[in-house]
Amino acid sequence: MGVPRWPRKNDAESIRARQEALGLDGEVTRVDLEPFSRAQEMLTGVAVIPVSVVGPLDIDLGRYELREPDGAVVETGRGREDVFVPLAHTEGGLSASLYRGARAVAESGGFRTIVLADRITRASCFVCGSAEDSLTLARWLEGELGTMRTWLEEQDDPSLSRFARLREVKTHVVGPMCHVLWRWTTGDAVGANMMTRNSYVLNMGFVMERSPVRPERAILEANMGGDKKPSFEYFQGGHGKTVIAEATLSEEAVRRVLRTSVDDLLELAWAGTHGAVASGMQSVAFTPASAIAAIFAATGQDLGMVGTSSMAHGTGRRVAGGLNVSIRLPGLEVATVGGGTTLPYARTWLELLGCRGPGKVYRFAQIAAAATLALEISASAAMATAGSAEFFRAHHERGGLR
Amino acid sequence: MGVPRWPRKNDAESIRARQEALGLDGEVTRVDLEPFSRAQEMLTGVAVIPVSVVGPLDIDLGRYELREPDGAVVETGRGREDVFVPLAHTEGGLSASLYRGARAVAESGGFRTIVLADRITRASCFVCGSAEDSLTLARWLEGELGTMRTWLEEQDDPSLSRFARLREVKTHVVGPMCHVLWRWTTGDAVGANMMTRNSYVLNMGFVMERSPVRPERAILEANMGGDKKPSFEYFQGGHGKTVIAEATLSEEAVRRVLRTSVDDLLELAWAGTHGAVASGMQSVAFTPASAIAAIFAATGQDLGMVGTSSMAHGTGRRVAGGLNVSIRLPGLEVATVGGGTTLPYARTWLELLGCRGPGKVYRFAQIAAAATLALEISASAAMATAGSAEFFRAHHERGGLR
Amino acid sequence: MGVPRWPRKNDAESIRARQEALGLDGEVTRVDLEPFSRAQEMLTGVAVIPVSVVGPLDIDLGRYELREPDGAVVETGRGREDVFVPLAHTEGGLSASLYRGARAVAESGGFRTIVLADRITRASCFVCGSAEDSLTLARWLEGELGTMRTWLEEQDDPSLSRFARLREVKTHVVGPMCHVLWRWTTGDAVGANMMTRNSYVLNMGFVMERSPVRPERAILEANMGGDKKPSFEYFQGGHGKTVIAEATLSEEAVRRVLRTSVDDLLELAWAGTHGAVASGMQSVAFTPASAIAAIFAATGQDLGMVGTSSMAHGTGRRVAGGLNVSIRLPGLEVATVGGGTTLPYARTWLELLGCRGPGKVYRFAQIAAAATLALEISASAAMATAGSAEFFRAHHERGGLR
Amino acid sequence: MGVPRWPRKNDAESIRARQEALGLDGEVTRVDLEPFSRAQEMLTGVAVIPVSVVGPLDIDLGRYELREPDGAVVETGRGREDVFVPLAHTEGGLSASLYRGARAVAESGGFRTIVLADRITRASCFVCGSAEDSLTLARWLEGELGTMRTWLEEQDDPSLSRFARLREVKTHVVGPMCHVLWRWTTGDAVGANMMTRNSYVLNMGFVMERSPVRPERAILEANMGGDKKPSFEYFQGGHGKTVIAEATLSEEAVRRVLRTSVDDLLELAWAGTHGAVASGMQSVAFTPASAIAAIFAATGQDLGMVGTSSMAHGTGRRVAGGLNVSIRLPGLEVATVGGGTTLPYARTWLELLGCRGPGKVYRFAQIAAAATLALEISASAAMATAGSAEFFRAHHERGGLR
Repeated sequence: MGVPRWPRKNDAESIRARQEALGLDGEVTRVDLEPFSRAQEMLTGVAVIPVSVVGPLDIDLGRYELREPDGAVVETGRGREDVFVPLAHTEGGLSASLYRGARAVAESGGFRTIVLADRITRASCFVCGSAEDSLTLARWLEGELGTMRTWLEEQDDPSLSRFARLREVKTHVVGPMCHVLWRWTTGDAVGANMMTRNSYVLNMGFVMERSPVRPERAILEANMGGDKKPSFEYFQGGHGKTVIAEATLSEEAVRRVLRTSVDDLLELAWAGTHGAVASGMQSVAFTPASAIAAIFAATGQDLGMVGTSSMAHGTGRRVAGGLNVSIRLPGLEVATVGGGTTLPYARTWLELLGCRGPGKVYRFAQIAAAATLALEISASAAMATAGSAEFFRAHHERGGLR
Repeated sequence: MGVPRWPRKNDAESIRARQEALGLDGEVTRVDLEPFSRAQEMLTGVAVIPVSVVGPLDIDLGRYELREPDGAVVETGRGREDVFVPLAHTEGGLSASLYRGARAVAESGGFRTIVLADRITRASCFVCGSAEDSLTLARWLEGELGTMRTWLEEQDDPSLSRFARLREVKTHVVGPMCHVLWRWTTGDAVGANMMTRNSYVLNMGFVMERSPVRPERAILEANMGGDKKPSFEYFQGGHGKTVIAEATLSEEAVRRVLRTSVDDLLELAWAGTHGAVASGMQSVAFTPASAIAAIFAATGQDLGMVGTSSMAHGTGRRVAGGLNVSIRLPGLEVATVGGGTTLPYARTWLELLGCRGPGKVYRFAQIAAAATLALEISASAAMATAGSAEFFRAHHERGGLR
Repeated sequence: MGVPRWPRKNDAESIRARQEALGLDGEVTRVDLEPFSRAQEMLTGVAVIPVSVVGPLDIDLGRYELREPDGAVVETGRGREDVFVPLAHTEGGLSASLYRGARAVAESGGFRTIVLADRITRASCFVCGSAEDSLTLARWLEGELGTMRTWLEEQDDPSLSRFARLREVKTHVVGPMCHVLWRWTTGDAVGANMMTRNSYVLNMGFVMERSPVRPERAILEANMGGDKKPSFEYFQGGHGKTVIAEATLSEEAVRRVLRTSVDDLLELAWAGTHGAVASGMQSVAFTPASAIAAIFAATGQDLGMVGTSSMAHGTGRRVAGGLNVSIRLPGLEVATVGGGTTLPYARTWLELLGCRGPGKVYRFAQIAAAATLALEISASAAMATAGSAEFFRAHHERGGLR
Repeated sequence: MGVPRWPRKNDAESIRARQEALGLDGEVTRVDLEPFSRAQEMLTGVAVIPVSVVGPLDIDLGRYELREPDGAVVETGRGREDVFVPLAHTEGGLSASLYRGARAVAESGGFRTIVLADRITRASCFVCGSAEDSLTLARWLEGELGTMRTWLEEQDDPSLSRFARLREVKTHVVGPMCHVLWRWTTGDAVGANMMTRNSYVLNMGFVMERSPVRPERAILEANMGGDKKPSFEYFQGGHGKTVIAEATLSEEAVRRVLRTSVDDLLELAWAGTHGAVASGMQSVAFTPASAIAAIFAATGQDLGMVGTSSMAHGTGRRVAGGLNVSIRLPGLEVATVGGGTTLPYARTWLELLGCRGPGKVYRFAQIAAAATLALEISASAAMATAGSAEFFRAHHERGGLR
């Protein structure tokens, strides 16, 4: 049982003790760790990921604010901008491909992005003695939204966050379990911790005290919340920011920049959508996670949220003059304040995007969506072409596919 | 359309041109970019993520090799080791929590990890004129596995990879689409590019030339391959390395280290599993992506694969003397050679793990799985406790949940 | 091209012409077809399915009414009854097993059933020129619920049904598609046709006329409505009647009637839930479709709705004195008026249940749920026992499993 | 505890006792019950469902046999026939619609149907003490297929079925659970009972006796078998017969018989496929369950299998001269012997189809698939048209939608 303890603190001595114990004295320990000392426990060194900058992306961005008290996202204006996007990754071809997609769109009139919704959910579960009791609890809770909002505002529990605002309550009764989906907005932060603390206080201080039935147990989260795990609930309903990016590619841009045709892209979309269905894939898209991960890594987002943030539903449809393409990202869990966004490097890249600090999160979400669509377009074009005889001949003449 | 071109090369001058155009002159450009100059296009700066090192994890690791020619993973030995794990992230509490889980397991006899399978799939689609034709193609392909292996070996196309070896062919006919799942092993690399090149040559040089029916179109990938997008196909069947980590927690460790009880953990597992079902979540687990992302970011793995690599199926079951817990990670897309693993920083962290270079990928996959389970255990314990009255009182005395 | 026409009418002469053309003159044509002559085209004979009657089921049934205008289901009373259930099927053992389950519950205090919700959805799709337009349409529609209700009431289009009342509108924008989920209640009928007609008039007479953008196309149903096809949308949210049945089995009844133990049942539930997850099964249950199909076939329900109506989420949990078991049937598409319920035979079996005619549909849904749970209990018990050594010995002594 | 027993036998006296107790003396008791007396317990009366006969369906049917010992389905010939299909249901319009679809196909050259596979699975679960043990069991089992086949043949346990032949063994390890998918062919019966008995004997007599590790528990079925519950496992891999039906509709037939256009049908398919994805629907199709249920009810199939048997993946694609349409039914659980197929009425309708008795099951499966496609075509055409302005005008002139 005598397992020795590993030093946990981040004072200079503890850091050095860990580095020495592990024999680390080279590059990974050379960067000044002080600015990171509160970001995590047992800090020991750094990882460095190269960052490309790709652009410009020509985007018609919306401006949004939340309506009180329901938390609907309301558009207050729009404006067109050229944006340069930092991408932290080590995948050869990714930056060039995203750039190609951006060029094709720029030549076709630009991206348009829209924020549909903003909501993040902590899903607690109250285990009761019977389905009857859990339903009684559910029906009561559904009527208490206003009261709970007021109650939360009146508490002076320092653990409560004022930024996390309760917007909706959804219940789901399965046998003796009353799952309760607390739906919040959390300002410019992702807000996972905020809503966790607020949900906890709500569970213990309000629900367990006032419920018309006595739950046997309150579980803070029982997997209906979707944290870092893709689920249908949030593929459809959204987690974080729900954003659509779209563009209408001209036939000219498809041919000259993307080196394919509208027909080929549509045939690929058709086969790819049916392939997704046949393999039990929730998303329909090509490689959204590549773009999302690269933007997240550059800007201090939570990399554990790459999977959920890259849930995607893409479409392509022939319209007059070309091809309308779009991507719906229902669960973009992004922040411009808090967490890794405040740290060196990350904050510089956010600043490059014009997305550092409060009031910037909808802008950031839209840029991420446009960049993701840019990569989708170019990757699809490469795939659509790669089966053609001409492509194969060119490939063999060049001595292989690069 | 006069869209200006952004310099794409990575010579010193182009890099500087980009940095100046963007007004970047601070921290993000201070790290020497030269070692990264072939990792991606339009290189401009770096992102830095702090790394903690957590351990020791006491793991009984298997040693494995591939059986020829079917590519089954065969265990050749086992050995118990103490391992320290680097975690690149900025989530307060994550490292400490993973450490707590590791301690609880160490006090209970350690982790055991097993590699079940190794397979990566590129899923091409041949679009035929009818379902009849696509079925003819499918039946023919299923009989050509041996011939195709030989054919691949005999080609001297320099684009072909010798590391990617064709192991299985699975066809799936839907109407005029004949989806073909080419299943490869790719040695110690993830192998996405390898298998792409080999599949391409196979499609164009073998299938399109010899098929008993004439496909109208060959699509290199039509979404049955599961690249970077979670799907049922690979949640069950595996993508990359399929690994299980397990441990049997003693009641003592549960009580003293995790500060909860076997009953509470089982009740949480029960509610959490039903919550996952109720929300259409494919995985059943708590927060595997947090551990996976942190290990991936430290060791130069592809962060776009965080979502697929963190597909997980966890279990908990009371056994004599405690609680058996396990996690199945079907799609760990990890490498110890190639891609980002060869770059500075990443290679150091891989070396710390004893996982740098050839012959190390099964070891690495197992350590990743054990670390993921460590975090699952501790995060579950926190969740299981968080609804108790004692926890709430303690919380209020301390002035809030930290 | 000269394909001959098959007579379509149901006058006596046409019926006889078909029977003679097919050489049918035996049992299938002996039942008087006149009462069925308006049920379908090209009527030619009958199918006969044997019906068992199983009971009594001891059920504590709720009484419900719809609240105006939101269509919430409100409980107005409860009462305990003994009910006999007709089951049309040919599966040996099914009736006896359901009966055994009912006995175990009766000895344990009876079933309790609860209606949670009542809603049926027709999901139209308006295809616009862009995502921007489809979102404009969506936002406008969400504000028009009250206006649309009034408009529907004011129309004197004879195709409109007064029984179908619009309760909610949910929009889902994916690229240029604006899916609109029209959510109705339809009284004691399933209401598929009613809501189809009303949705059609709403689409063409209201939306296409007044929309702030001009949709290119209105599609009456584009698969978000869930008709006869299980989907996560309705597994969670409900289609038709959402009902829970539960019971708390005494240890005595588990042992003596079901011949198993609470431990064995819980172990089975644990493995079965994980098995469902591992096979990508949406429902978690054993054999709900067997009970649903048998009740539907006896009572004139739409057999094409067996799949959706048997979506189920079952639970089992140890409680003081025994085992709480429950089943949640989210999509019971049942009727006590209209369709096949008005025909001979069916109406007799509905009458036996006390469920013929208006005002009976919630009662019927609850009885169906209780019967389904009865079968789940008994089938689970058989499965839980079937792996034991004693069972195997008994089996061999008897000369095999019957 | 004094719950009275309900008579369970099917002798004339018991039947009459039940009828009298329930006050049943009319139509439901008038049909002679004797032929049904062994079909189920507690027989009390009958249900009667009207049957239409629709046709001819012009189908190019394959002839198939199973290859030994792997159980692959091999085509031995083809032939074109006109078939009349019995449909038991009460849904106005269904028969006429299916007829219209059949006419459109007949005018376009007929249906072609193909049987892809034949397999039915019972999925047992061996619960071990650890994942390590369950994996040891899995690896051992995978090598025992030949031995198990021989062992089964050598047993003289009368409970074993000779018709159920073991074809494949697939294992799936999740923690201490070793799920084992026993894959059988069962001749012309669905074979649920056969394979249950054989799997049971295999579990208890072979696995539990010889396993290199000692499982704590053998569970005969733990939900990976897919019985009567749709799952991804069988949506992709098949349960029962996997069949594709296809047709290439001429533009003329689309216009004149279906009164729509290829463009409209493709636009509908596009929106419907995306709608299915957006609602978490596994199948992509319109209303396959309507056709499946009607054929099943007429021919004595198990109505509890309507949901699984109507899992479907439909496609539409423009080809030279028209529209290629197809439907893949992966899990057609049909029989021409055993169960309800031997009973009066059912056997007559099977005979009409030329599908009564041994050697007919692949024929029957193909006819069911063609009929399902006929309905899909016509229902899609109605849907594709229903949003048009002309349709709306015609509708209003006629005074509403019928």
